[in-house]
Amino acid sequence: MADLRKRSGKGTDLDTETENEAANQDSDINADIDSEDDKSIGKKIDLSSTIPTGTDKAPEILDATLAGLSPRWRNWFIRGIFTWVMIGGFALLVYIGPLALMLVTLAIQVKCFSEIINIGYAVYKIHGLPWFRSLSWYFLIASNYFFYGESLVDYFGVVDNRTEFLRALVKYHRFISFCLYIGGFVWFVLSLVKRYYMKQFSLFAWTHVALLIVVTQSYLIIRNIFQGMIWFIVPVSMIICNDVMAYMFGFFFGRTPLIKLSPKKTWEGFIGGGLSTVVYGLLISYLLCQFPYFVCPIEFNEELGKMTLDCEPSPLYRPQEFSLPTSFTPFVRMITGKDTVTIIPFLLHSLSMSIFSSVIGPFGGFFASGFKRAFKIKDFGDIIPGHGGIMDRFDCQYLMATFVNVYISSFILTDSPQKLLTRIYTLKPELQLELYTTLRDSLTARGILQLHAP
Amino acid sequence: MADLRKRSGKGTDLDTETENEAANQDSDINADIDSEDDKSIGKKIDLSSTIPTGTDKAPEILDATLAGLSPRWRNWFIRGIFTWVMIGGFALLVYIGPLALMLVTLAIQVKCFSEIINIGYAVYKIHGLPWFRSLSWYFLIASNYFFYGESLVDYFGVVDNRTEFLRALVKYHRFISFCLYIGGFVWFVLSLVKRYYMKQFSLFAWTHVALLIVVTQSYLIIRNIFQGMIWFIVPVSMIICNDVMAYMFGFFFGRTPLIKLSPKKTWEGFIGGGLSTVVYGLLISYLLCQFPYFVCPIEFNEELGKMTLDCEPSPLYRPQEFSLPTSFTPFVRMITGKDTVTIIPFLLHSLSMSIFSSVIGPFGGFFASGFKRAFKIKDFGDIIPGHGGIMDRFDCQYLMATFVNVYISSFILTDSPQKLLTRIYTLKPELQLELYTTLRDSLTARGILQLHAP
Repeated sequence: MADLRKRSGKGTDLDTETENEAANQDSDINADIDSEDDKSIGKKIDLSSTIPTGTDKAPEILDATLAGLSPRWRNWFIRGIFTWVMIGGFALLVYIGPLALMLVTLAIQVKCFSEIINIGYAVYKIHGLPWFRSLSWYFLIASNYFFYGESLVDYFGVVDNRTEFLRALVKYHRFISFCLYIGGFVWFVLSLVKRYYMKQFSLFAWTHVALLIVVTQSYLIIRNIFQGMIWFIVPVSMIICNDVMAYMFGFFFGRTPLIKLSPKKTWEGFIGGGLSTVVYGLLISYLLCQFPYFVCPIEFNEELGKMTLDCEPSPLYRPQEFSLPTSFTPFVRMITGKDTVTIIPFLLHSLSMSIFSSVIGPFGGFFASGFKRAFKIKDFGDIIPGHGGIMDRFDCQYLMATFVNVYISSFILTDSPQKLLTRIYTLKPELQLELYTTLRDSLTARGILQLHAP
Repeated sequence: MADLRKRSGKGTDLDTETENEAANQDSDINADIDSEDDKSIGKKIDLSSTIPTGTDKAPEILDATLAGLSPRWRNWFIRGIFTWVMIGGFALLVYIGPLALMLVTLAIQVKCFSEIINIGYAVYKIHGLPWFRSLSWYFLIASNYFFYGESLVDYFGVVDNRTEFLRALVKYHRFISFCLYIGGFVWFVLSLVKRYYMKQFSLFAWTHVALLIVVTQSYLIIRNIFQGMIWFIVPVSMIICNDVMAYMFGFFFGRTPLIKLSPKKTWEGFIGGGLSTVVYGLLISYLLCQFPYFVCPIEFNEELGKMTLDCEPSPLYRPQEFSLPTSFTPFVRMITGKDTVTIIPFLLHSLSMSIFSSVIGPFGGFFASGFKRAFKIKDFGDIIPGHGGIMDRFDCQYLMATFVNVYISSFILTDSPQKLLTRIYTLKPELQLELYTTLRDSLTARGILQLHAP
């Protein structure tokens, strides 16, 4: 939930008072930063020279075409064009399939991590600090090894028919990951140098918080994709929709300020964006529910040796008849002429997600915006012309991903016979037999199973 | 792995140069802090007035008895007495049982968290910073709710026969925990105040790192206790043994400095302590393996309605005969007169743990010691006379707990039929039936099951 209209035609010179004045009309972030009491922080921090913040740099051909425009409109065009480039890229990825989505999620994660770490690097000005960069990347690799490994182990399950080496990797995955982490930990302790203790510990903490935000949550995104692409596309596009629509409503109807942290956000934008997101969520969910491609969980097909998206769609995505409590029945009959309502259950889940994305989602944006102000940077980076860094676009997606993951595991996911069988087969034969007889007796007692022979 | 001999008879006045000179002979930490280049940190940090570091304050009766001694010996006695008080308390807890151990682990965790948070409070001098303390404690409670809940859900399993309310708590545990966390997150964003952005974000990160170290790892300790008290007593006492024996060997034979971070540590102490820990580990493991009280996993007995420690000890804790690769056989026969060796498997695991605790364990101590130097504090607190804060005693235990937990889940733990059945019964009846027939066919095909009727 980065605010779509905080960009002006300005460069990176946050400290040049005169330039700020000129651009102040549509650039509230600079004004805020200048008026902030620097004494409370102890020293003036100026990262503008070290952190590349959003600029209007654009491909040369675009630059030439837009040469005649004022900087403000030039930025507007660049920003708009690259918004559509991103949406188009997203659609293309969805078309290519889940594997492409996962790889791009990984790439985005790495870029976000690098943006956050670069800010730490600039804040603590660690010229000559031994090993810091290598250590951060080492921790990134180790934690990705752990989290991606966990996914692979879960989803590609039994690899009994593969090589011994792969089996050992799977069986001892956590132990290997832990050893990798401990290696980094020991390396950090050995790299401690007297003059730099405080900086080194601060950056160690910085790295870990970055891992917590970026790596763990992009792991959750991957897990969501495995449940079916709908669990990825719907929440991600809801955040985008909420972002754009809050801007539109705020632009046309905005009167009442919402929160001090982001002075340009209004209650009108917040509410209008929220309602639009709910409507959009229902529409896109209804549409995607029609295609198995979007609703089927991704499963590894042992026979074909590749991931598949084929399935008989779960009732979750098919219209279901629900009978309502009797006190409602007269109203329902009045409207629909029946005693029951027919609804696609996923639409109800879509409703929960859109409410979360429009009520809590913006707080992810406020958080990122507060963080940027704390360290006096305008953007996290400058990779997307007109938008800033990758992290500026994905701040809220991470919060949403966690919500969706917890939501799935609490309300949707149930064990499948296949997964449980995989685990049963790892038991010793006599224990498998014990489980079998207990299960048989229980099924018989409950009348689910009728045995031929007594 | 806090270093046992760094304490001198000094108070908290780290900055008074003349006093430092006088006490310098057996107080290397002060010397180090004074010689550290403060310019690299940007400003001089002096927490000695705000963080209560280890003093020699002791119960009055002890004070009176030791009045005639020099400060150095007085400290030595106080420290020694409270070491034995702690070991005695530990033995008493083990005697009372696992529930007491878990409650004390929880209490220690809370105290450690408070010590770390107090340092953050002092570092950032947050007079008037809104809500910071309440927020930190809120996050502590929310994360404990999540982690302790996860344990309870796992171990007390099926609560179908309890009230609806409890069932909902179990079923939606993750969702409720996530909502609690999001509540704290929103609260944090709303508490952001312009002048304090940077301090607030730093303390937010500080709180999360503290949660990562203290809460997650004490959760792992609890899970280890559930596997049987031996998995708690052996590693905890190994760290203590390594600590004491490294000191003894260093004291008598120490010549070669080990690491700059802790100038008084020597290679002789490191190696001697390590060897002693291996021997101690084998002895204590052999001893504890004799009693079901120590080796039985803690299980909730549905019939009795309480936790029990009764079981037929697993082969892990009983002597087993192993036949060695044929190339070894002649040697083994030469020594034992047999083709096989008889060994308690747990002793091999004890060996792994003692190697970890003596090779990697000390790095936990170096880390804590570096952290204390970074923030120029002598100890984490002053709760244990002569020892400093709780965190000074438990810095290494946390690292060890994670190792033991990963070790158990990689090398020891296997699914039990009971746990899998619990999950099977949550499936829909037709899926239970499907699982049943697949399992039957598989067992028959492998010749494990002979059906009476074809």
